[in-house]
Amino acid sequence: MLTVDLNCDLGESFGHYKLGQDEQVLDLITSANIACGYHAGDHNVMSNTVQLAVEKNVAIGAHPGFNDLFGFGRRNIDTSPRDIYNSVVYQVNALSGFCKIHRVNMQHVKPHGALFNIASVKKEVAEAIAEAVYDTNPSLILYGLSGSELIVAGEKIGLNVANEVFADRTYQPNGTLTSRKDPNAMIKDVDEAIERVTQIVSKGETTAVDGTIIPLKADTVCIHGDEPSALIFVQKLRLALLDEGVILQSVGNTRKS
Amino acid sequence: MLTVDLNCDLGESFGHYKLGQDEQVLDLITSANIACGYHAGDHNVMSNTVQLAVEKNVAIGAHPGFNDLFGFGRRNIDTSPRDIYNSVVYQVNALSGFCKIHRVNMQHVKPHGALFNIASVKKEVAEAIAEAVYDTNPSLILYGLSGSELIVAGEKIGLNVANEVFADRTYQPNGTLTSRKDPNAMIKDVDEAIERVTQIVSKGETTAVDGTIIPLKADTVCIHGDEPSALIFVQKLRLALLDEGVILQSVGNTRKS
Amino acid sequence: MLTVDLNCDLGESFGHYKLGQDEQVLDLITSANIACGYHAGDHNVMSNTVQLAVEKNVAIGAHPGFNDLFGFGRRNIDTSPRDIYNSVVYQVNALSGFCKIHRVNMQHVKPHGALFNIASVKKEVAEAIAEAVYDTNPSLILYGLSGSELIVAGEKIGLNVANEVFADRTYQPNGTLTSRKDPNAMIKDVDEAIERVTQIVSKGETTAVDGTIIPLKADTVCIHGDEPSALIFVQKLRLALLDEGVILQSVGNTRKS
Amino acid sequence: MLTVDLNCDLGESFGHYKLGQDEQVLDLITSANIACGYHAGDHNVMSNTVQLAVEKNVAIGAHPGFNDLFGFGRRNIDTSPRDIYNSVVYQVNALSGFCKIHRVNMQHVKPHGALFNIASVKKEVAEAIAEAVYDTNPSLILYGLSGSELIVAGEKIGLNVANEVFADRTYQPNGTLTSRKDPNAMIKDVDEAIERVTQIVSKGETTAVDGTIIPLKADTVCIHGDEPSALIFVQKLRLALLDEGVILQSVGNTRKS
Repeated sequence: MLTVDLNCDLGESFGHYKLGQDEQVLDLITSANIACGYHAGDHNVMSNTVQLAVEKNVAIGAHPGFNDLFGFGRRNIDTSPRDIYNSVVYQVNALSGFCKIHRVNMQHVKPHGALFNIASVKKEVAEAIAEAVYDTNPSLILYGLSGSELIVAGEKIGLNVANEVFADRTYQPNGTLTSRKDPNAMIKDVDEAIERVTQIVSKGETTAVDGTIIPLKADTVCIHGDEPSALIFVQKLRLALLDEGVILQSVGNTRKS
Repeated sequence: MLTVDLNCDLGESFGHYKLGQDEQVLDLITSANIACGYHAGDHNVMSNTVQLAVEKNVAIGAHPGFNDLFGFGRRNIDTSPRDIYNSVVYQVNALSGFCKIHRVNMQHVKPHGALFNIASVKKEVAEAIAEAVYDTNPSLILYGLSGSELIVAGEKIGLNVANEVFADRTYQPNGTLTSRKDPNAMIKDVDEAIERVTQIVSKGETTAVDGTIIPLKADTVCIHGDEPSALIFVQKLRLALLDEGVILQSVGNTRKS
Repeated sequence: MLTVDLNCDLGESFGHYKLGQDEQVLDLITSANIACGYHAGDHNVMSNTVQLAVEKNVAIGAHPGFNDLFGFGRRNIDTSPRDIYNSVVYQVNALSGFCKIHRVNMQHVKPHGALFNIASVKKEVAEAIAEAVYDTNPSLILYGLSGSELIVAGEKIGLNVANEVFADRTYQPNGTLTSRKDPNAMIKDVDEAIERVTQIVSKGETTAVDGTIIPLKADTVCIHGDEPSALIFVQKLRLALLDEGVILQSVGNTRKS
Repeated sequence: MLTVDLNCDLGESFGHYKLGQDEQVLDLITSANIACGYHAGDHNVMSNTVQLAVEKNVAIGAHPGFNDLFGFGRRNIDTSPRDIYNSVVYQVNALSGFCKIHRVNMQHVKPHGALFNIASVKKEVAEAIAEAVYDTNPSLILYGLSGSELIVAGEKIGLNVANEVFADRTYQPNGTLTSRKDPNAMIKDVDEAIERVTQIVSKGETTAVDGTIIPLKADTVCIHGDEPSALIFVQKLRLALLDEGVILQSVGNTRKS
């Protein structure tokens, strides 16, 4: 039976600043990546977002990032693997407090933005993150770019991992994402994006930018929820996947069953 | 058998900024209050300080404060009990992550600075903190000003509490600390300070500023470690207490035995 | 000839977080209070907002607040007049840099949120702010709550001042604003609010909550721009004032003419 | 007549955190680079440091850095030249406010840490900084690594520049600093360091790591003041330079005379 998880970044508001459409998004996804107060979110937003996810029966993950609210965690900051290890321990455990008070288990950890990107290609960063997650709780699932260094590091240390694919990005023949600087990086046509996701999920392969068919593992699909149009896209994607007989459920539930 | 705990604020360095003499202080105390990254400390400092405390066999507590590095958590910030509740959940659980990776249990929680002071007198703040600690882990011990609202709130919710006294402060006939604005607030003479602490610990009473003898419960004595002279004071205080036959041990160990 | 200034807080976005409808608001007001990076705004937002105000021919003011992005400058923070003096010097001069590069003079300074409120009633805070503004540039106009301590302090040091009134707030018989905790504090009916503003501007008086007519000086009216409905209110208010023959222009232009 | 300027980073304390020995250092240098609240310093520290420099007759410069207190401005942060331009305008003008209230002119601007390093080699960053300084005040002197991209950018836009050398670093045959990763990067012997500085200042040349003599322009020498030993080094260096007949004065005074 084919299954896939739909995940989305949530809880990105901060103080007086509101961001995203968390309530509507939670009706459409199976796993929520909740910001932990470093690149976005604050202790009140974290509590409210965990509570909302519990109510909507969506699995919860920590979404640690660089401590850079101004840059929203999207700017690379030169730092040591030890510093990254400790920053992940800090953020994941802070969020675990809100899981505790709302009586829910944390399912996964997915790094955010620049930290996610570096962890995809830099082995020592990937291993620092995997180690921090494992040391916090070895039953957590580590989300990372499909086939990336982060996935390798997670498997090596003994974590359950989830290979992530993007609905709106194209792939190179070697399985890496096409750089955003390349005009072919983004898939703007909704139908094409949906067709690609269903291809990846149901066949475990995708058509790279040069037309070759390459294997691509997809345990989870990353969804964006910032704009109303994004929500319409997710609704269409859900219908297309259900049409193909794909079951939408969190990675944690899939692994259990 | 008379016992008392000596506690001190630690882990107050931040990034490039070093503060305190943590290593030397840890040789003299039985419980460490470790800053959690809001008023002081950062994820690296937290990890190092927990590790050091484990090595020196000192009990570990979380030391949450207002999110105000500039003011070092000493400035009162108007906010809601709910905001304080969430900020304590965040900080205590972040520190618990470092306890986890260094394989030690957290013993206690003691609020810092302005948060400690407000919690001493404002019932709804005291209750928010006590609730946050209880919801995180009901076996944690809540440290508060002896006889204060925080102690009342902790007992009410079912937490173990530790009544704290200060070695260098005088008391009013009603048991409250003399305001720092009063010239009689501080005890500057080392011998007098030591005599007062031994009186409180061994007899459970102190001489208020007007000469009356009042009851004062002391489970733990707050020690300062910022300057070399402070360390000499603590060494003298330890000897004086040992001379009186007082056993110096953490509150957690006393409660267990 | 009756004139009045319409002022609004602008430039309150921060990094990835967008707030307000600055472009539309700038078409409706005569003076902009631009956040300076402490309670809101950042160096990029400041530059863009100054440029936009220049293009729309709106007078520019600095809008210093407490260094509290999380609380959006709305929480009172206990601190010294000297600290407030220095924080105002810092913020006003930082904004003056963006006035320099966009070749425009700064017109005024208006404190934000909790700082504005404390400066209205606490003489030493009012004087610290007035002194910081005067020492930076004695030709700056100081905006403050009509008749408040801040206005008194500004006049005393020799600054031009602008008495500010609120379109949506009621007044006590002694001329102070009705506390927000009072159910009568806010005027929700648009027509009533407009009628009150035109009464204040054209007659220099208002009807207090108890029905008595009290004098109230209005050099400038504070406008909100957060929501679409706020913009419609301002458009109506502008028409009503123009109908009364009131000229809408910045305080600086009025003083010059 | 040979002259040289001795500059040092100052005003790096923050809130409760004290750093450096500013008062003692000010007795030994001719130009002070004062932190502006982004990587270090705060509005109170800035005011006190400017005042102290005025009292000690030391020329004042702004020392803008990345907005990264945690990393003390030493970590490279990926950002755009426009963001850097605006951040420099913000910081330099904020400091200029404290020059205004202490009635002194700012002499120079020197970027800090990672920003200094990137500006040395990356043309678009160098030009963004030079432009921000020029647009703020074209009479400011721009300090940069001797012969670096920052010096080139400053000269190109029409600023006075100051070529900076380091007393404790070795140089490559092509005039760049030896990387800190190289064991030969630092000169640890005090006498050797002093001999090298006097060579550079009096002859305009230095001996590179491979023994070749290369030209090296030195308008100013960067001094460190963090530790007591650093002060003794500066005292020795001053005597050695005076012995060679070198006049120690700020770059601004040299250019005027």
